[in-house]
Amino acid sequence: MSKATTSVEPLAIGIDIGGTGTKFGIVDRLGNLLFSSEMSTRNHTELEDYIDDLYNNVAPLIEKAGGVGRMKGIGLGAPNGNYYSGTVEYAPNLPWKGILPLAKLVENKFSLPVVLTNDANAAALGEMMYGAAKGMKDFIMITLGTGVGSGIVANGKLIYGHDGFAGELGHTIIIPDGRLHEGTGKKGSLESYASATGVRYTALEMLAKTKTPSLLRKISKESMDSKKVYDAAIAGDPLAKEIFEYTGKILGMALANFVMFSSPEAIVLFGGLTKAGDLLLKPTKEHMEDNLIQVFQNKVKILVSHLKESDAAILGASALVWELK
Amino acid sequence: MSKATTSVEPLAIGIDIGGTGTKFGIVDRLGNLLFSSEMSTRNHTELEDYIDDLYNNVAPLIEKAGGVGRMKGIGLGAPNGNYYSGTVEYAPNLPWKGILPLAKLVENKFSLPVVLTNDANAAALGEMMYGAAKGMKDFIMITLGTGVGSGIVANGKLIYGHDGFAGELGHTIIIPDGRLHEGTGKKGSLESYASATGVRYTALEMLAKTKTPSLLRKISKESMDSKKVYDAAIAGDPLAKEIFEYTGKILGMALANFVMFSSPEAIVLFGGLTKAGDLLLKPTKEHMEDNLIQVFQNKVKILVSHLKESDAAILGASALVWELK
Repeated sequence: MSKATTSVEPLAIGIDIGGTGTKFGIVDRLGNLLFSSEMSTRNHTELEDYIDDLYNNVAPLIEKAGGVGRMKGIGLGAPNGNYYSGTVEYAPNLPWKGILPLAKLVENKFSLPVVLTNDANAAALGEMMYGAAKGMKDFIMITLGTGVGSGIVANGKLIYGHDGFAGELGHTIIIPDGRLHEGTGKKGSLESYASATGVRYTALEMLAKTKTPSLLRKISKESMDSKKVYDAAIAGDPLAKEIFEYTGKILGMALANFVMFSSPEAIVLFGGLTKAGDLLLKPTKEHMEDNLIQVFQNKVKILVSHLKESDAAILGASALVWELK
Repeated sequence: MSKATTSVEPLAIGIDIGGTGTKFGIVDRLGNLLFSSEMSTRNHTELEDYIDDLYNNVAPLIEKAGGVGRMKGIGLGAPNGNYYSGTVEYAPNLPWKGILPLAKLVENKFSLPVVLTNDANAAALGEMMYGAAKGMKDFIMITLGTGVGSGIVANGKLIYGHDGFAGELGHTIIIPDGRLHEGTGKKGSLESYASATGVRYTALEMLAKTKTPSLLRKISKESMDSKKVYDAAIAGDPLAKEIFEYTGKILGMALANFVMFSSPEAIVLFGGLTKAGDLLLKPTKEHMEDNLIQVFQNKVKILVSHLKESDAAILGASALVWELK
């Protein structure tokens, strides 16, 4: 992808480190992704090799965009990324274990200032600068993918908490003694229901517990996923619709609690599950309102991110750079 | 109460408006309550008369403290107080109904700048300036009284939310379809369990559901209250202890969710229920830790406010004044 630069304003480099792949690009202040590309994360067993490869892949884009002198800095989004320490700590999906000084390593390699945070916080910044939350000072970003991530903005600033780990809303307990989350060992967390993984479990549970005829009964346990539940629901399958109703009920209850915490102007949803549209959003909104006390009712917008999913992670990471002094 | 002023630094007036009484005082920057007094709220059916009486009661203290020229402003803490609008909206326990422009009325009467917020937010500011949260930038204040109030500080600032009503943690749902809260009509909120009222209900429920011998069986339904449960627990009564265990279990679950939201350095507890001490705090801490994912475990302090309860509300309200430009 390529677009001519039209000014000499500073640019930001955004790098999103995922478990499978790493996406990166050069972004201007308006959120135009000028140049972008990607590479594998997973193929690098040694962190040093990964950093070398990352440099070799990003450097040509920097040159195309006018050279390192135009770059204000690098924003890194990574799972379990800590804003304060610039480290990634015990990220289960990355090939490197323990506490990784990623910001420092990238800074040394690129000779540019680096800011790091977790991917959901980066996504929230991206929405605030370029997306659905533009101009808002109080909103909550929820990413509904394989897991549930979140970034919380209050008083115009991301909430990092005293240790840099704030905003783990996917792990809040919504159903005490509810469904086991295999990753954390906790029961009844939002993530165990309102994620792609959660929808799959709900489908398997409902198929086992009921005798309702359903298109989903043709699908094997192993190949069941949220996409197949969505396809069945779109085809009018009542059980598939009920699965999204149930998911929305739990998500709506959780959102009500979040609203009573920070009273956001909007909740911005992002990620694969939002493709279910009103199948999920309608019950979510309804159950959120049901659980809110009066002073909060009919005030909070539920918005779906309109950033292109493939670009959003890079835009979010790059947004960190504009906060650099 | 009276103490000689020793400097010509500006002073703040703190006024806490409760349903029964109004407390007020003159406070210096170090949190010394130089002069204070109180008057009835309830006896004033007309808001104008109340404001007149308030002025007549506070004016002599202002004179004693060096005159109106030394006063930087007035901080008002009131139930349902809104920081942005300076109004008190539909406060069920105050004698005046509807939306009350309290900040404006007090400002006009005293000819001093006025800042208003709800009582729990004021309490949080008081703890941050003078109390257990001194120097902290991220903490949550929870008041455990007849109800459950809260004030949340992140990045060194109170979270007011987009509409000024943030921080209603007492109304978050902890047990879906749980105990009915008569005031809100919602089920399973924190306040319906972890308040003095909640402890009373738990006592009545446990007495009805079990046959366990207990000192509490001698107490009539009408006169049961959290103080009597406390006295029985201190006397070694197993059922009374179990009531606090249960209350702490619910409070601990709720605190875990709050921690995963804003990752505070500490949670500061205040109010009548905290007098139960370890009877309540031990299970609270234990269940909070049980529900936290690893990254948050054994990091968050649970502190009990050490401000004198009779002064804390005035100190909290006065703390608002130091934020005035």
